[in-house]
Amino acid sequence: MIIDRLVERVAGFGPVCVGLDTSPAIVPGGMIDRWGIPEAMLRFNREIIAATADVVACFKVQIAHYEAQGIDGMACYRDTLAEIRRTGVPVIGDVKRGDIASTAAMYAKAHFAGDFEVDLITVNPYMGLDAIAPYLDDVRHREKGLFVLVRTSNPSSSELQELAVSPTATGSLGSDMQVYEAMAANVAHWGEPFRGESGYSSIGAVVGATHPEQLARLRRMYPKLFFLVPGYGAQGGGGQDVAPAFVDGNGAVVNASRSILGAYRGANKECAEDRFAESAREACLAMRDDIRRWMP
Amino acid sequence: MIIDRLVERVAGFGPVCVGLDTSPAIVPGGMIDRWGIPEAMLRFNREIIAATADVVACFKVQIAHYEAQGIDGMACYRDTLAEIRRTGVPVIGDVKRGDIASTAAMYAKAHFAGDFEVDLITVNPYMGLDAIAPYLDDVRHREKGLFVLVRTSNPSSSELQELAVSPTATGSLGSDMQVYEAMAANVAHWGEPFRGESGYSSIGAVVGATHPEQLARLRRMYPKLFFLVPGYGAQGGGGQDVAPAFVDGNGAVVNASRSILGAYRGANKECAEDRFAESAREACLAMRDDIRRWMP
Repeated sequence: MIIDRLVERVAGFGPVCVGLDTSPAIVPGGMIDRWGIPEAMLRFNREIIAATADVVACFKVQIAHYEAQGIDGMACYRDTLAEIRRTGVPVIGDVKRGDIASTAAMYAKAHFAGDFEVDLITVNPYMGLDAIAPYLDDVRHREKGLFVLVRTSNPSSSELQELAVSPTATGSLGSDMQVYEAMAANVAHWGEPFRGESGYSSIGAVVGATHPEQLARLRRMYPKLFFLVPGYGAQGGGGQDVAPAFVDGNGAVVNASRSILGAYRGANKECAEDRFAESAREACLAMRDDIRRWMP
Repeated sequence: MIIDRLVERVAGFGPVCVGLDTSPAIVPGGMIDRWGIPEAMLRFNREIIAATADVVACFKVQIAHYEAQGIDGMACYRDTLAEIRRTGVPVIGDVKRGDIASTAAMYAKAHFAGDFEVDLITVNPYMGLDAIAPYLDDVRHREKGLFVLVRTSNPSSSELQELAVSPTATGSLGSDMQVYEAMAANVAHWGEPFRGESGYSSIGAVVGATHPEQLARLRRMYPKLFFLVPGYGAQGGGGQDVAPAFVDGNGAVVNASRSILGAYRGANKECAEDRFAESAREACLAMRDDIRRWMP
């Protein structure tokens, strides 16, 4: 099970997930001038991957930034994934796909095989189990996994995710439940058949660092649900906020993107472009220390 | 406003939306043998587009089927969109994207400009207004539009979309509301500033044909919300099921994919491959007649 590899990585290398949200705005200007956008993005990613692979749990690649560059950007997405695969570090395709059966089967083909193959993808549960089921064969037989959106880190996420669900609707789940809790219950249920030796399931949940009390609540309710926690760093979350995600130093990976990729724009912006990869590594180490300091 | 163009198309050409869910399985085997998968998909699409452009309201291209073919498939997606643009018929990118602000801004760049430019895209509202807001500049200034998932056509869509929301959560919206109704209220609200001369907004809602009573309910509540209605044909909906979506012969487009693209596999399968484009046109006309028969 892919989840066991991820749990091992967290135990051995810490819980940092580097988000390769690589846009032209974050790549050093000198690289863009020299190579043009897609080539500069790829070279930037290659150096970030080489500099951080031994201090992170995994990488997460946000496909939107590559789609925005059209076909050439998609080729950069493909080549970035290939580079990560060469390191052996697990990679999450942050694609947030969500569609019905026949279409989701196409997404499974797209993201669990071929040019865009990754180990795990993020999925959106608005359409229910139909949007999850087509991936399960690959989860069972091909070491693949899913992170289902449960409680996202953005401000307006509460509009839907915190709607209170009527007690009658939740049945035995009890009253006073919000949409995100009902979704967490679904995800825990869907993941039951896909638990690895670590006890965690290859179907995990996305729960943002910007809601630490809800993270703690979900952790209490589902001690063996593995979390992908976005929102650390640029979005405002810190080590203390993500601490509730962990049990015995494991059970979650914490994603940061801008604060790592753009770490070279630190105190002395004028000369740090050459050091972007080292700065990223230092930011990963500082983030790992920060999280470990608060980890239960 | 793009919505006015769509309303005009429905009035002039009927409400059929051809879904170019073009997979190797639906393309005639002879074409695949001759040209290989991505090239055969593109040639198939070109003939379908040419044969149906004057009897449909719009096209919808389901990106998953192209992603599944990797980079070559994405090039086919790009070239299919370019072909549709040449006809002047509006095109919906069925991408169901949903992500937070900075990422959604990248999706706006990806799908409202450049290689993958379309007129409207489908979006997933699980993350709230943050997942919608980054597109609104393009809606306001560049003749672009959105269809937000509200009530999807798949069987398990009820898991989340029919959860009953507590009266306290919905405030003035009243009690006995389900998640999809709360979402429809959001979409109607978000769309207010983007109404065209037709009275409809360039922010519409996806409501499946497989729930005719809910379609009727939403139509009564929001007479000027424009609907994209999937689920006709292969998914089981017929003219009678989609009738409640319409007001005075307008207000919705109805999507069908397999029943149109695969219409050549009719009574005499053995010899119909050469006629796939004519068969698709005939299927569009039959679908238009079926819908008009029941339309209020």
